[in-house]
Amino acid sequence: MALETLHDLFIHELRDLYDAEQQIITGLPLMARAAKSAPLRKLFEEHLKETSDQIDRLDRLFAALDVSFTGRSCKAMQGLLAEAREVIQEDADPEVLDAALIVAAQKIEHYEIAGYGSVRTFARELGYKDAERLLEQTLKEEFAADEKLTRAAESRVNQRAATADQASV
Amino acid sequence: MALETLHDLFIHELRDLYDAEQQIITGLPLMARAAKSAPLRKLFEEHLKETSDQIDRLDRLFAALDVSFTGRSCKAMQGLLAEAREVIQEDADPEVLDAALIVAAQKIEHYEIAGYGSVRTFARELGYKDAERLLEQTLKEEFAADEKLTRAAESRVNQRAATADQASV
Repeated sequence: MALETLHDLFIHELRDLYDAEQQIITGLPLMARAAKSAPLRKLFEEHLKETSDQIDRLDRLFAALDVSFTGRSCKAMQGLLAEAREVIQEDADPEVLDAALIVAAQKIEHYEIAGYGSVRTFARELGYKDAERLLEQTLKEEFAADEKLTRAAESRVNQRAATADQASV
Repeated sequence: MALETLHDLFIHELRDLYDAEQQIITGLPLMARAAKSAPLRKLFEEHLKETSDQIDRLDRLFAALDVSFTGRSCKAMQGLLAEAREVIQEDADPEVLDAALIVAAQKIEHYEIAGYGSVRTFARELGYKDAERLLEQTLKEEFAADEKLTRAAESRVNQRAATADQASV
């Protein structure tokens, strides 16, 4: 049976997140290059570094659990990054493109928040203390990254886009 | 230019959410049928009703904005629902399947939280008061649905799965 125990589901979801993070490592540099404002580009670049740390943590977890990290292809992240690439290729006003990139990035962050939130809870239920601690650390980073994107969306980038919008009416 | 103004991006994201909701209307009944515990099934069924209301709100918004709701295919939701269907088809212990369905549902909720959060902010920036109010209402429902799933995950369903897990070791 593929999902006989909560431990099986825990591994299943960790592998999904591992594949998702690998996809993000490839996709995030494209988003950073496409960003028009320097602060947004910096935000993406900083999160790229965090993503590497998060992959390292997953690597440590898989080693400790003595299981392979392969076996899952995260279809949701494929869809999320396909949408980000679509936005990058759109003919767009620079400020509006930045606002669109923030939306794409927040959708990606929220996938990770849901994913890491779940495996953190499973680790707690299963009594895997070290795993819980590592996953909690990543979860906090994802919440913080989402919060930074919200602040970026609510302040400068969107205000500029609104100004561009009014100017064009 | 496809995304010349923030208004363009607002419509672009509303269409994405409209397609996402239509996909959920098709996918959620499958998840409800697959759920083994009655409370989880009820939770999915209740959210199906809410999803209908949310589509009605989007319909009203598109009518008020005098634009078509078509034109976007939400690839992220295709991926999210593909993962939910994969889980349903797995050979799984009933309690573990319920825990897996909760994960899939929370990932779907978080996509909507990020999406509705963004368009609500855009509506505010653009001064579209009625749109902001409608989108805020849906956003609150999505947060509440996610919270209910978290409670379900942290309490009964996962406890059972952990018990099943310990029994199998």
